[in-house]
Amino acid sequence: MTDPQELDWTDPLAKYRQRFVGVDSPLVYFDGNSLGRPLKVTGHCLSDFVYREWGTRLIRGWDEMWFDLPLKIGDDLGRIVLGAAPGQTAIGDSTTVLLYKLMRAAVAARPGRTEIVVDRDNFPTDRYVAQGVADECGLSVRWVEVDTEQGVTHELLEEAVGPQTALVVLSHVAYRSAWLADAPELTRIAHDAGALVLWDLSHSVGSVPIELDAWEVDLAVGCTYKYLNGGPGAPAFLYVAERHLDRLTQPIQGWMGAADPFLMGPTYAPNEGVRRFLSGTPPIIGMFPIEDMLEVIDEAGMADVRAKSVLLTSYAVELSDEILAPYGVEVASPRDPARRGGHVTLQHPRSREVTASLWMRDVIPDYRDPGGLRLGLSPLSTSFLEVRRGLHAIREELERTS
Amino acid sequence: MTDPQELDWTDPLAKYRQRFVGVDSPLVYFDGNSLGRPLKVTGHCLSDFVYREWGTRLIRGWDEMWFDLPLKIGDDLGRIVLGAAPGQTAIGDSTTVLLYKLMRAAVAARPGRTEIVVDRDNFPTDRYVAQGVADECGLSVRWVEVDTEQGVTHELLEEAVGPQTALVVLSHVAYRSAWLADAPELTRIAHDAGALVLWDLSHSVGSVPIELDAWEVDLAVGCTYKYLNGGPGAPAFLYVAERHLDRLTQPIQGWMGAADPFLMGPTYAPNEGVRRFLSGTPPIIGMFPIEDMLEVIDEAGMADVRAKSVLLTSYAVELSDEILAPYGVEVASPRDPARRGGHVTLQHPRSREVTASLWMRDVIPDYRDPGGLRLGLSPLSTSFLEVRRGLHAIREELERTS
Repeated sequence: MTDPQELDWTDPLAKYRQRFVGVDSPLVYFDGNSLGRPLKVTGHCLSDFVYREWGTRLIRGWDEMWFDLPLKIGDDLGRIVLGAAPGQTAIGDSTTVLLYKLMRAAVAARPGRTEIVVDRDNFPTDRYVAQGVADECGLSVRWVEVDTEQGVTHELLEEAVGPQTALVVLSHVAYRSAWLADAPELTRIAHDAGALVLWDLSHSVGSVPIELDAWEVDLAVGCTYKYLNGGPGAPAFLYVAERHLDRLTQPIQGWMGAADPFLMGPTYAPNEGVRRFLSGTPPIIGMFPIEDMLEVIDEAGMADVRAKSVLLTSYAVELSDEILAPYGVEVASPRDPARRGGHVTLQHPRSREVTASLWMRDVIPDYRDPGGLRLGLSPLSTSFLEVRRGLHAIREELERTS
Repeated sequence: MTDPQELDWTDPLAKYRQRFVGVDSPLVYFDGNSLGRPLKVTGHCLSDFVYREWGTRLIRGWDEMWFDLPLKIGDDLGRIVLGAAPGQTAIGDSTTVLLYKLMRAAVAARPGRTEIVVDRDNFPTDRYVAQGVADECGLSVRWVEVDTEQGVTHELLEEAVGPQTALVVLSHVAYRSAWLADAPELTRIAHDAGALVLWDLSHSVGSVPIELDAWEVDLAVGCTYKYLNGGPGAPAFLYVAERHLDRLTQPIQGWMGAADPFLMGPTYAPNEGVRRFLSGTPPIIGMFPIEDMLEVIDEAGMADVRAKSVLLTSYAVELSDEILAPYGVEVASPRDPARRGGHVTLQHPRSREVTASLWMRDVIPDYRDPGGLRLGLSPLSTSFLEVRRGLHAIREELERTS
């Protein structure tokens, strides 16, 4: 059996754990895929922002720093975690609002096509927005049925798309199973049908390498409060491939997306660049924690982050097989690490109650219907010993209540 | 001539100035109506949030504190500055996105009606969103022409509305002239025509008393980074009168607006309450500065805040007449304080250059085309002496460059 302490000793990224708040407490945190821990530097950074930047530069901060910040951090995201050249990525509203804008933009760019393809196991907000956009634009949603331990496979997508498909909306990592989609190949399949593809990267960005440009992705969104540690409700990001920038427009035409925002002219003309996908005044304070985390990921290197993520999830699978399988726990995530994102879902009929008991003793996984106990293992803040302690706590709770 | 020092000595709200960052610096700040100064407490509050709340409660913070925060702060806004009973106000996205949602909701609630009424001098984002919503919903915008020193009068609105009007979109305080609209009467005029009214409170909230319930307003939005000192890009708020809550729906149907967000069910059903106007995960960090400022306004009392605001703008008008009129400066805001919001716009052909020079010497007004030099006088952080120093600096710049 693998020794977690040896894994920690030999982990080249182990030192990063100390940069996060609260890692010396006895708490076991398995929910970094819902809300990442804050970096210690972030608290200082925010108060510094208030006293030195907002408080002294005041309105001048817009000219000096903030006006282009959504695009600057967008470019940083592109370079460090998205594989996107500058000028295609921006920090914007919530993931939901960005999904809405990009779905509307995509549907308008494929007139005459009648369907949006979404998988039945996609995150609720993706499904709800797709249904809403389809309804209001006179399209219908074609639901792809997926195995709960998988996501959308080549075969499933090939069956679903055709000349009627305007847009395919997919999650890079499935929020329940952790299934890691074959993004380049699925993108190609959608393109062969003449459809656009919108990838939701919320559950992969910061833990799985992404190459949006190389994969020829059209559109993407993602949230920043999971593996990018942006804090609760941190603003989301969007990506629009350069080749689409002059043709796609979004419906929420606000001053910050205008060709010249401070001209304040009589009519709206969209900005030439990715700024056209912005609408209102961008949420500046919410961007600093993301910036802090991007620096750390850049330093650690995305390839090493993924390597540690694979080791963490593999160790969790191995340990679950050893100590939890006897209690009826099944691994509901792909066993092939190449098909698995940064979390592991364990299946057990009593997962809901077990999760509640674990929370009472400061072991924090997440519960997702039906029967899924999710272990979100943030690569830079989770130790192997933490995984071991958490899984032993799960065993104790199963034993205690069996 | 009024003595500014005497005004400061007798100002019952003078003590609040010391609660803001940077007020002891020689800087003259006349842009609180674009971006308010931070409260000193806000920097501590944010770092405290990172270390004690986000950092220790982690994902549990959603259950314990954050999930209802958009509605809790919404209710506080309602009680302290909006005259709105609980359950009708929420913190949401940007003002622009909220304008989009509420305009779409309103237009859908008035089927068969063909026009949205907006004044030509409304803030750009209001005009752009209205045009966009009209275009996509097959309506047209009826533009109300207004005198640049005024806003929409009773007569102008009576001429513009009729059985064809679905929605009237108005600003409570005009961003250029500071014209304070007669909200209750204009609301009645719109209602008499069978239209709904959407008030943009961005330039009034926190400086002018508002009574949304008493005025029988249907819908309202507002930003929080002006007189509510929420910081750059702080999240906006929306108000939907209780009588409309079960009938109006908005198009960006995300999980946070669903009947039961954590059920994560197959289809979207809107929440029964004002939560249905939320879409994605709400921006928690951005809400704390607003909460801090609401406490201060609550302590000072909105009536006293308005009284000081009137004294500040009256003093600025008086002093401008005395020392700037000889250089050709005209007051372009209403002279009747009952028709004036919290800022004063001075008109001069060289306002643009003068503003640039003033910025070089740490006197910060705002410039708005054409020829408008705006003095935004935040009631709780601006002193009368600051007004005097700023206007004398304007005189010096006019003299130097004449």
